[in-house]
Amino acid sequence: MKIAIDAMGGDNAPKAVVEGCIDTANEYDIEIFLIGNEKEVEKYLNGVNPTKGKIHIVHADEVITGEDTPVQAIKQKKNSSMVVGLKMVKDGECDAFLSAGNTGAFLAGALLKVGRIKGIDRPALAPLLPTEKGVCMLIDAGANMDCKPKNLLQFAIMGAIYMEKVEGILSPRVGLLNVGTEEGKGNDLTKQSYELLKNSSLNFVGNVEARDIFSGACDVLVCDGFAGNVVLKNTEGLASTIFSLLKEELMKSTKSKFGALLLKDSFKSFKKRFDYKEYGGAPFLGIDGIMIKAHGSSDSRAIKNAIRQAKLLYDNGCIDRIAMDLKDTGVNDVEQ
Amino acid sequence: MKIAIDAMGGDNAPKAVVEGCIDTANEYDIEIFLIGNEKEVEKYLNGVNPTKGKIHIVHADEVITGEDTPVQAIKQKKNSSMVVGLKMVKDGECDAFLSAGNTGAFLAGALLKVGRIKGIDRPALAPLLPTEKGVCMLIDAGANMDCKPKNLLQFAIMGAIYMEKVEGILSPRVGLLNVGTEEGKGNDLTKQSYELLKNSSLNFVGNVEARDIFSGACDVLVCDGFAGNVVLKNTEGLASTIFSLLKEELMKSTKSKFGALLLKDSFKSFKKRFDYKEYGGAPFLGIDGIMIKAHGSSDSRAIKNAIRQAKLLYDNGCIDRIAMDLKDTGVNDVEQ
Repeated sequence: MKIAIDAMGGDNAPKAVVEGCIDTANEYDIEIFLIGNEKEVEKYLNGVNPTKGKIHIVHADEVITGEDTPVQAIKQKKNSSMVVGLKMVKDGECDAFLSAGNTGAFLAGALLKVGRIKGIDRPALAPLLPTEKGVCMLIDAGANMDCKPKNLLQFAIMGAIYMEKVEGILSPRVGLLNVGTEEGKGNDLTKQSYELLKNSSLNFVGNVEARDIFSGACDVLVCDGFAGNVVLKNTEGLASTIFSLLKEELMKSTKSKFGALLLKDSFKSFKKRFDYKEYGGAPFLGIDGIMIKAHGSSDSRAIKNAIRQAKLLYDNGCIDRIAMDLKDTGVNDVEQ
Repeated sequence: MKIAIDAMGGDNAPKAVVEGCIDTANEYDIEIFLIGNEKEVEKYLNGVNPTKGKIHIVHADEVITGEDTPVQAIKQKKNSSMVVGLKMVKDGECDAFLSAGNTGAFLAGALLKVGRIKGIDRPALAPLLPTEKGVCMLIDAGANMDCKPKNLLQFAIMGAIYMEKVEGILSPRVGLLNVGTEEGKGNDLTKQSYELLKNSSLNFVGNVEARDIFSGACDVLVCDGFAGNVVLKNTEGLASTIFSLLKEELMKSTKSKFGALLLKDSFKSFKKRFDYKEYGGAPFLGIDGIMIKAHGSSDSRAIKNAIRQAKLLYDNGCIDRIAMDLKDTGVNDVEQ
């Protein structure tokens, strides 16, 4: 498998990206193309690359930053690490692309440079949320603001394929994000989407309220990108506030500091469960190529897990399976 | 002030409700009408009512349960504690109504039995979320699924009045829940609402992402009821999962148990910050009367705080102020 990696994307690039690649190349049968400023990348690669021939540098002298306007940046910065990487997938030189850079540019670039799978109207960003039982795929988490019921059905099909193929869950439980569990709840979109999902061949478990995500009510949680983005960011923000308030509380007295010291391992193992770095990146499903968006603040471990995720998508032929399933289920005959 | 209280609503009714009322009557200059099964209510009131003349029982022999269909229940159970209480406000016998019962029935009942403030198209449920700096009013949290920009502007005006009058915040910062902070982000609703809010006389601080709610990015967070309900329930579910996983982690070894013992006070003070019982109930703003929805699992302390909240709304003339402000700002001239 050949994977193109945006060496310049993310808060800790290129160091964390390069280090993540070195670790991965040592472990997996994979060929990595690190795209970015050659000198910068070499600095972190030089002398520590034990896997000659498995990591290649592809020079790109521009970088799309977090401040760039997505579509404009993709169109104008033709020699940026992101655009060069996406083109390598488009041209068949690589099987997957991974970036921890500007999310908007990543989404726009994948659409403009690589394009959709035939039959998919709207590709969807699909991060994994930790739950008490494992993980839940949230689809869509922000790529599509105003959606139609048909889009949500396609999200559900793609999410179920991912959870089956990559996470090994047989007949994944698909839930519809809603304000109540009873049929007939919600806004126009969820009411109509409920009908489509109920009549599909998916293992649809009905409406799921946002309070039940973390207890593991479903394996795939379907929603429009606005609601999904709210869930994702609310989760991030609340977890971060809880951890910082807890820390504050523990530093208040000598007694609490001592208690905290005794609990160091417990807190570590606890925090790990809410650490996105463990779960890889967010696949952008529906693009005609494997696209992984790693978290902006990814460290080398997060990059490694995201590469592993791309490999699982590749080894299990997920993209072909999405194209095939959409053809089989005749989802495009649905007029909604 | 006279307040009608649904003695039969909530998981811990009537015990918790009656006890909350006794505590409150002792402290505040307030007259309470406890509505419900006379014998049941008397059982908890009997002998421990030190404030004769301040608590009255109003018999109602029906109860709307959590399983009842909202509109149907309001129409059919005419002698339920909820319908009787709402009618007392409508008829001017009481100034406020409070219930910890069926939320859907509460919302439908307030609309059908009491009615809207003139000029308000859609009343909104507005709970308070704890933040690192205080509280943030989330409006709407589930009363209105599909909203228009004009509705969101009205929510913002009502929320700002509440935060100023009840929480004492001068010129409350109004934020619009969105997927990014830049102008132009979001779905059709938020894009159009942004324009209305920007051109209003409110202290509009722009788009607020769900990750920034808890750090205190704004005092009033405006959104449609679907998104607001997602925020509310996601927050509840995640906080509960984090606390239960933390507890699990702390019980794993003798060392961690000892550490946890030392930290007992810290955990208590920490948990209190995320305890809805501290913050009262959720006012249903836009109804022509003070309506407070207390949490379903309210204990006596939560009931007491919710009564206190109703009193603050009353003492500060919030309902009149909403009616007046909507007239002044000419919000109803806006055609959206």
